[in-house]
Amino acid sequence: MNKKANIVMQTDFGKGIAVCTMHGVSMLVDPELKIFDCTHDIRNFDTYEASVSLDYIVDFWPAGTVFISVVDPGVGTSRRASVAKLKNGSYVVTPDNGSLTHVKARIGIEEVRTIDEKTNRLKNTEKCDIFHGRDLFAYCGARLASGVITYEEVGPSYAVDEIITHPLIPCKAEGGRITGMIANADYHFGLICSNIPAEIFEKEQIGYGDFVHVKIWKKGQDTPAFESDVPFCRSFGFVEVGEPLLMISESLHIQAAINCENMAEKYGIRAGSDWTMEIEKC
Amino acid sequence: MNKKANIVMQTDFGKGIAVCTMHGVSMLVDPELKIFDCTHDIRNFDTYEASVSLDYIVDFWPAGTVFISVVDPGVGTSRRASVAKLKNGSYVVTPDNGSLTHVKARIGIEEVRTIDEKTNRLKNTEKCDIFHGRDLFAYCGARLASGVITYEEVGPSYAVDEIITHPLIPCKAEGGRITGMIANADYHFGLICSNIPAEIFEKEQIGYGDFVHVKIWKKGQDTPAFESDVPFCRSFGFVEVGEPLLMISESLHIQAAINCENMAEKYGIRAGSDWTMEIEKC
Amino acid sequence: MNKKANIVMQTDFGKGIAVCTMHGVSMLVDPELKIFDCTHDIRNFDTYEASVSLDYIVDFWPAGTVFISVVDPGVGTSRRASVAKLKNGSYVVTPDNGSLTHVKARIGIEEVRTIDEKTNRLKNTEKCDIFHGRDLFAYCGARLASGVITYEEVGPSYAVDEIITHPLIPCKAEGGRITGMIANADYHFGLICSNIPAEIFEKEQIGYGDFVHVKIWKKGQDTPAFESDVPFCRSFGFVEVGEPLLMISESLHIQAAINCENMAEKYGIRAGSDWTMEIEKC
Repeated sequence: MNKKANIVMQTDFGKGIAVCTMHGVSMLVDPELKIFDCTHDIRNFDTYEASVSLDYIVDFWPAGTVFISVVDPGVGTSRRASVAKLKNGSYVVTPDNGSLTHVKARIGIEEVRTIDEKTNRLKNTEKCDIFHGRDLFAYCGARLASGVITYEEVGPSYAVDEIITHPLIPCKAEGGRITGMIANADYHFGLICSNIPAEIFEKEQIGYGDFVHVKIWKKGQDTPAFESDVPFCRSFGFVEVGEPLLMISESLHIQAAINCENMAEKYGIRAGSDWTMEIEKC
Repeated sequence: MNKKANIVMQTDFGKGIAVCTMHGVSMLVDPELKIFDCTHDIRNFDTYEASVSLDYIVDFWPAGTVFISVVDPGVGTSRRASVAKLKNGSYVVTPDNGSLTHVKARIGIEEVRTIDEKTNRLKNTEKCDIFHGRDLFAYCGARLASGVITYEEVGPSYAVDEIITHPLIPCKAEGGRITGMIANADYHFGLICSNIPAEIFEKEQIGYGDFVHVKIWKKGQDTPAFESDVPFCRSFGFVEVGEPLLMISESLHIQAAINCENMAEKYGIRAGSDWTMEIEKC
Repeated sequence: MNKKANIVMQTDFGKGIAVCTMHGVSMLVDPELKIFDCTHDIRNFDTYEASVSLDYIVDFWPAGTVFISVVDPGVGTSRRASVAKLKNGSYVVTPDNGSLTHVKARIGIEEVRTIDEKTNRLKNTEKCDIFHGRDLFAYCGARLASGVITYEEVGPSYAVDEIITHPLIPCKAEGGRITGMIANADYHFGLICSNIPAEIFEKEQIGYGDFVHVKIWKKGQDTPAFESDVPFCRSFGFVEVGEPLLMISESLHIQAAINCENMAEKYGIRAGSDWTMEIEKC
């Protein structure tokens, strides 16, 4: 029985050779560690997407898992290199640059510490200031996951309130009109996911088969990117190929899609707090 | 010695965050499991390509391996969620939607069962009907691979004859003319692989260095996509860069290619039963 | 404690199904092996890029690691299939086609052997001459990593001098002018890395914050691809977004980049011995 924590890595490094050195450094720390990759195709420098991605996966891994997230446009500057302890018992090793936004809001952060470079930085890398993914985050994360250091030995703690976060616009339901932001998008399949919890549909008595009026727009644009009456369905296959629908996402929020087509691409919709989804019962 | 079966996953999910939750769910089931990825770049919704891919890899893994294949355009509808036991002792966890076509035809399926959602679905996911990859296939596959359930405990069996399959056109050799379908294609290198077994060339006394007349066309098109006299060679390097050749594929079928160029792209050729390769001795 | 060596694979195979059979063959050899992927997105047939990639990762893995590198335009021809023992104790299993250039130059090769196909080729694959990645390199590499064979049992040794290498142009510093080749490039972020060691800047007394005149050109082109006065900085974030800079790369060489933009793409610069970077103090 492997009692060490698993490591799960995500970055915006794309192709694998940089990531491969992060795996190797983990093996140098402890050859018994098990390392998994989430994605390395986060949009370059997009700390919002890094935050959404972490939030999407964190519930499906055993408590104690060490997530290493490196989307780091400020590498080598004064941004903090941190390890957050989540309220569910897992850890996130990351630059403190907005990547913790969603897990902080939804799960909560019990404690956060800056990485002490004196003890938790790979030896003989002091002259390189552009690859903390390898020299600091992978090395420190592997030491934590393997039990070489305790969480307290990561470095000094700081106030959870000081963690950098992106703005999140809460969803609201008033007079039969439900409004939320586009919290995330699966650009591969083109799914547009709001932050509107599925249970709001229950409260508003919208059930499978009902039609709703959906409007999606970006702040500052005159015309909505998408506007139509669409059915609320159990899954894609309940509408014809090429037809839009609403469904419950895998994170149990209201999500728009087109059966077998890429809705995000077709209408140029992206995730972020400047994108709104509005839903009214027909 | 790890006595648990390995898991090998393939999907059309592209980037990794959805796949990462499937890995995580497997770790929740049993932290000792070893998980491998085949590809997650199967063309979206292409169950034929999923079937070809499974068939391509299955011989090179130990008997008992649990393959989890999720290309699932009908997720949440009435298509069956199944686990097939292959005649070579390995398992395939997959929607029953054509993904089993090639392994059924070549290796044979000993038994097939639908997944019982009451026991073999991840708890608290009942409200989401669009991600069986995570909630059903990964969860059930991990339980099977780790030995938490036996194959019989997957759910009720049904007739192997009822498995959904794509049409496959058998190859034939008559009067010196050999005809087959384009069974698969490696779109990365542009290799065009027929379902003509290499041993037919032996029977027809076509040897390395011989030239043959090759014609490749799509059903319904007036002119062939490719037509030329090409040599049959041991490997790419036996013709000049940019020249076409036939060779024996890694699955021991007759395959067309161009040395250091992408033949599939150059001539717009794809795999499928509507594409034919015809070969005549010069 | 796992005493077997880790396997790290890199290829130009792109999508995963070919790689997946290499993983599977390793599991057939020994189910206890741990297999990692470096990248499978090396440019098709680019043995120079394979060599750079190996050199980039090899220091960050424990001594004894077995690297399997398969970029193999000459598969099935008379090029040698080899296993090199590096002076740092690790192994590289690869076609001898230039892929060993950089590790030979920097780390040194203690010994090199050709793979004996009689003992170290996967059984029943003799009829296929186009997939040595699976049938020869993965199979032999796994046997070596697991201890089934010793290094001596790989096959007969040959002179290290006979190893095929790409030309490398050494960097030089004369009269305040430093010249090097573009040794490698990270095409994902667009970083342009020379073979000029960072310590030359110390000798030439160029420090953080100093401006230098940088010129980058391709042999045979009339005008440089890039020419400008740029600051030497600790990291990206010390210049404005969109501004160029020099920095120390993660391999401790002088590297050019643009903050949050892709310099390689913007100026059409690639790695190779036909590309030169010249630096003069302003």
